[in-house]
Amino acid sequence: MAGSAFGTIFRITTWGESHGKALGVVIDGCPAGLPLEEEDIQRYLDRRKPGANSISTPRKEADSVEILSGVFEGRTTGTPISLMVRNTSQISRDYDEIASCYRPGHADYTFDMKYGFRDYRGGGRSSGRETVGRVAAGAIACKLLSRLGVSVCAYTRSIGPIEADMDKFDKASILRTPTAMPDKEAAQAAMEYLEEARRRTDSVGGCMECRIEGLPAGIGDPVFEKLDANLAKAVMSIGAVKAVEIGDGRQASLRFGSENNDFFRMENGAVTKATNHAGGILGGISDGDTVLIRAYVKPTPSIYGTQQTVNRSGEDIEINIKGRHDPIIVPRAVVVMECMAALTVLDAMLLNLSARLESIEQFYKKP
Amino acid sequence: MAGSAFGTIFRITTWGESHGKALGVVIDGCPAGLPLEEEDIQRYLDRRKPGANSISTPRKEADSVEILSGVFEGRTTGTPISLMVRNTSQISRDYDEIASCYRPGHADYTFDMKYGFRDYRGGGRSSGRETVGRVAAGAIACKLLSRLGVSVCAYTRSIGPIEADMDKFDKASILRTPTAMPDKEAAQAAMEYLEEARRRTDSVGGCMECRIEGLPAGIGDPVFEKLDANLAKAVMSIGAVKAVEIGDGRQASLRFGSENNDFFRMENGAVTKATNHAGGILGGISDGDTVLIRAYVKPTPSIYGTQQTVNRSGEDIEINIKGRHDPIIVPRAVVVMECMAALTVLDAMLLNLSARLESIEQFYKKP
Amino acid sequence: MAGSAFGTIFRITTWGESHGKALGVVIDGCPAGLPLEEEDIQRYLDRRKPGANSISTPRKEADSVEILSGVFEGRTTGTPISLMVRNTSQISRDYDEIASCYRPGHADYTFDMKYGFRDYRGGGRSSGRETVGRVAAGAIACKLLSRLGVSVCAYTRSIGPIEADMDKFDKASILRTPTAMPDKEAAQAAMEYLEEARRRTDSVGGCMECRIEGLPAGIGDPVFEKLDANLAKAVMSIGAVKAVEIGDGRQASLRFGSENNDFFRMENGAVTKATNHAGGILGGISDGDTVLIRAYVKPTPSIYGTQQTVNRSGEDIEINIKGRHDPIIVPRAVVVMECMAALTVLDAMLLNLSARLESIEQFYKKP
Amino acid sequence: MAGSAFGTIFRITTWGESHGKALGVVIDGCPAGLPLEEEDIQRYLDRRKPGANSISTPRKEADSVEILSGVFEGRTTGTPISLMVRNTSQISRDYDEIASCYRPGHADYTFDMKYGFRDYRGGGRSSGRETVGRVAAGAIACKLLSRLGVSVCAYTRSIGPIEADMDKFDKASILRTPTAMPDKEAAQAAMEYLEEARRRTDSVGGCMECRIEGLPAGIGDPVFEKLDANLAKAVMSIGAVKAVEIGDGRQASLRFGSENNDFFRMENGAVTKATNHAGGILGGISDGDTVLIRAYVKPTPSIYGTQQTVNRSGEDIEINIKGRHDPIIVPRAVVVMECMAALTVLDAMLLNLSARLESIEQFYKKP
Repeated sequence: MAGSAFGTIFRITTWGESHGKALGVVIDGCPAGLPLEEEDIQRYLDRRKPGANSISTPRKEADSVEILSGVFEGRTTGTPISLMVRNTSQISRDYDEIASCYRPGHADYTFDMKYGFRDYRGGGRSSGRETVGRVAAGAIACKLLSRLGVSVCAYTRSIGPIEADMDKFDKASILRTPTAMPDKEAAQAAMEYLEEARRRTDSVGGCMECRIEGLPAGIGDPVFEKLDANLAKAVMSIGAVKAVEIGDGRQASLRFGSENNDFFRMENGAVTKATNHAGGILGGISDGDTVLIRAYVKPTPSIYGTQQTVNRSGEDIEINIKGRHDPIIVPRAVVVMECMAALTVLDAMLLNLSARLESIEQFYKKP
Repeated sequence: MAGSAFGTIFRITTWGESHGKALGVVIDGCPAGLPLEEEDIQRYLDRRKPGANSISTPRKEADSVEILSGVFEGRTTGTPISLMVRNTSQISRDYDEIASCYRPGHADYTFDMKYGFRDYRGGGRSSGRETVGRVAAGAIACKLLSRLGVSVCAYTRSIGPIEADMDKFDKASILRTPTAMPDKEAAQAAMEYLEEARRRTDSVGGCMECRIEGLPAGIGDPVFEKLDANLAKAVMSIGAVKAVEIGDGRQASLRFGSENNDFFRMENGAVTKATNHAGGILGGISDGDTVLIRAYVKPTPSIYGTQQTVNRSGEDIEINIKGRHDPIIVPRAVVVMECMAALTVLDAMLLNLSARLESIEQFYKKP
Repeated sequence: MAGSAFGTIFRITTWGESHGKALGVVIDGCPAGLPLEEEDIQRYLDRRKPGANSISTPRKEADSVEILSGVFEGRTTGTPISLMVRNTSQISRDYDEIASCYRPGHADYTFDMKYGFRDYRGGGRSSGRETVGRVAAGAIACKLLSRLGVSVCAYTRSIGPIEADMDKFDKASILRTPTAMPDKEAAQAAMEYLEEARRRTDSVGGCMECRIEGLPAGIGDPVFEKLDANLAKAVMSIGAVKAVEIGDGRQASLRFGSENNDFFRMENGAVTKATNHAGGILGGISDGDTVLIRAYVKPTPSIYGTQQTVNRSGEDIEINIKGRHDPIIVPRAVVVMECMAALTVLDAMLLNLSARLESIEQFYKKP
Repeated sequence: MAGSAFGTIFRITTWGESHGKALGVVIDGCPAGLPLEEEDIQRYLDRRKPGANSISTPRKEADSVEILSGVFEGRTTGTPISLMVRNTSQISRDYDEIASCYRPGHADYTFDMKYGFRDYRGGGRSSGRETVGRVAAGAIACKLLSRLGVSVCAYTRSIGPIEADMDKFDKASILRTPTAMPDKEAAQAAMEYLEEARRRTDSVGGCMECRIEGLPAGIGDPVFEKLDANLAKAVMSIGAVKAVEIGDGRQASLRFGSENNDFFRMENGAVTKATNHAGGILGGISDGDTVLIRAYVKPTPSIYGTQQTVNRSGEDIEINIKGRHDPIIVPRAVVVMECMAALTVLDAMLLNLSARLESIEQFYKKP
């Protein structure tokens, strides 16, 4: 329980440091019978790959995934799926400064306080590279969900003050622009904003959003394992996320009840809602509508100017962080959010299989 | 794993419906040796009790707690602590309307979708009364934390558009005003605002905030069990919460990195931070500073006007919810937030005992 | 995780001390829709009730169960079921001797070593009375299993050297004889043997056996969550059990492979086994045959003669345990074994619902 | 929760199939600061390696372990330790027969029933090769335990009817004889017995025993997480184990209470027991004495003669299993038992850190 596992039935355990030999994940509890090949996973990993454009770091990370177990003759067998990505591009360099000092906004100090020392190379386990395991596992969750009619889609909602206009939502542009924004014009403006920040050797924050479509009503458990509570945890566990909203989120707190309640109504014989302020979840359980989550991300803490801090010997010092860094975290984190949401929803769907005696009886009376 | 348990080492399981015989909680994993009596718990339960003033429902809930196990000669024994509150004030009344229809903003529909039927009396398990178990357990967590030098304090930050001024922070007034606001003037304005909403038979939302002081650095686990991720889940699991922020939260996403980074500096021989935008957590692990969490709460969904909805037979209908309801959830939820934060932090502190070999060796070499 | 919870999906948490106010259990994760009333549970509790005959203690324990939550209009709702049994018959008496000394064969010493002190009244949490919660929850598991075509039946296999002859197996006599033996003649011999031991103020051990019939093939998970591994844990967790066997158990270790392998063969179009040395489990997964478990139980440690021991002050002393005690544990533990086996098998059946993608797809595509 | 994870704080997840690309394990929750290198693990893996002598299969398995994460500058960092062993020696061969039929005594049939199909090459996940991950993780647990003064030692107690004489116990001979017996004479007799069985192309069973020394009193949790219950599960989860005993085990059930109780007595100022029938555990909690566990193992199911069985098409057939197989499982399983016991005990010791408030206060008040 040291923190690197997620999920109850579809349970993943990630491992690996930024500059270690490899990173990976073991998925225990994937149902048998899902067609799976490395390409299914590689496609997701490529979305978090840097070096593709001007706003991400020029480091080259091949991030080629290898399926080591759990798949036989092209299908999952129900036994643990082990996935590994070898680290190939770490440059052997001088880490003396980072080894002995605590970078502002990073976890150097807190890891030292917890464990007594840390793997300081490239941030070790607290590096964003840790998400390789999440994305590899999430790719499988997404594929499985699509078999159940559920789709998950995350994108950049805003970069600094530049917000995507949802009326211009264009799913295709999410993968096409380096900003991962679904609105081409806003994406253009955001690129300019980022360029300006980069010139000042500064970094910016932003907001990412995720939509889950096709989720049947009834998913999630009451009280502590509410679907929104687990989504909040899943998304808040992504480094640099500082706020999470479900549906209208904070806005709901400024409304009157008469404005905020979503009325139910029948439509083509099915229960629907006239509005979706709730974001598809009532009492922690999905209501059949689109589930909507938003995550606010702080600016990249690695910036180029001189910063004040302390070192391991307890002295006030000044540091200048070397290397090249993304001026923004959001666009590369979008696929991580998508994967964390998928893992959460899939696990809740599997747990839901035992909610009613009636369907259990049916399962065990099948011919 | 049907959702009513929380925590890994200090693990609680709550039970009970709004209008059932009783509600309660079992705490498994409370360390032995904590002085404990019913009064310690009753004090917290009284804070969530309605009927004390004009803004909460005039229902009388005695909510008298009974310790059934786990305490001997005034101290916890290390075995499960069972706490029970008998329901005494439920009026036997006609639930026919609520039984067959789905109230907007409530979990009636989603419970039916999940389980096939539901205990509809007073909302059953999805009622706010469910929090009796959380608060009873949280009271013990708070007492234990105080022994470790950690204090947890939640309060109302805003009601509708009325926000408490933190420069006028007065801890004593949290328990003295029905709004649970730490700023007397804002509390007064909020009371008027609520009165106005009540006159229009409407409800309002708001924001609550929680500060954890005295938490040592090193608490929380990396990756999925980050302290902020678990706090987000804990707080989002409280009914009606729609957004959670850590530290500066959403504001951080609008800043530049140069503005948002907290510089470390030495002060009286100890590492401190010049600012606390991060809210006391870096990389998911506490940094020794005050932990700050904010939760945004939707307006009470039970309002008095006519609302459109559907019934169990799939017909569009209109309903008027009877009974009397709080025009706002926030002030009574403040103690629930305090308890959920305490449960989260305590569990993380217990898990942290095994982080370093060195201290484990010390423990087992004690004379 | 302090030890009082069992199961993953159908998860129970028991609580209560021998001479505390009450004992009970919370069941979280019981599927919705099971008809349930107190009588269903009472029937099982009555089977562990002492005082019914000469071989059990003459203490009167009413053990009347109360359902406090989770059942509405006669059916389980999917929310936690809280069950409580008030303690009524504890005689207020002098515990001074037992409070300060360590009874041989009991957990007095180990509880003190772990927790620093203990609730010594009647053995506190380490008393056999702890099993009230197990049996109450197990009664529900048994009822649910019967809906899925699975039956669980435990009985006394031997008392001291007196063994039941399985060729004379008579299920009805299990409930009729105080020995819980399914063979009337052996039961008679065992009664005489016990009477003789009682005369010498001594106690005896024995063996209990449990058969699970109707379990479909495919239940249990490979590697660590094997069905036999979980049954072994479940049964070994019952106080005084010192050995567990599956199928032919220890005997299998004395055979040649050619004798021990069960051949598969087709019978009426179904796969069956020519023999069942394996006890219905292969590779940790049920094979469709009868699951057979055996548990060996030590003699009651509370005996009447003078025994040597030490006290809390670290002095060698002699003690004479007062009160009246069962000369054998087995007959009253039989229902506990039945319940533990039922809880284990039910949980494995619920976990098995997510083993194959195919059936998950079917579940979510149901009209 | 599909079965491949073990432990609560020191939690391992194993993966890999007999003839897949690799096998491995991820350890999440290993305390920081343990010196660790590949050689520490390799030594344990070598003990389960076949091919060393006449009684194990002549297949060559290099089983060279690689540490992929969690160790930095020669010490564990507290983050997940990923260990991998590449498969190198699988001969690409014709699996047609095994693919379509169900070998008696194996898990072929039950895997098919559970998952719909299986990786049949060499037994896939149900092969004894699965234990590579257990042993790799167990090696670390053993090293950590030795730092806490606890040693774990398993050996062969009997092979068929040949039993080691404990009065001739010689620890060194465990590693020196292919039988892993601690009694040279018995080992010699066992070798002859095995040779005879091999001549008849048959296989034999046996018994292995494990001693845990140096374990302090107070380890293990009451009720369901008793130390003996968890040891029983750990050991029963090893393929082919059919019975588990603690202390005198089954023998205890044949004794009178007056014979079976272990008297406490003071020795050099410490509480000790005059005898150890209990096997070092009382009420599920260690009593400071040697913990003793015994496991009975069935004969290898893969034998050479013709056997009756059925195939996937539901036809009665006869099979002759090809390849070469160990005539006995016990000697190679001894190190697996040692590792499973170590994992169980270590986890219980880590959980025990939070048993008393007093020591938690001390931990958090350290300077």
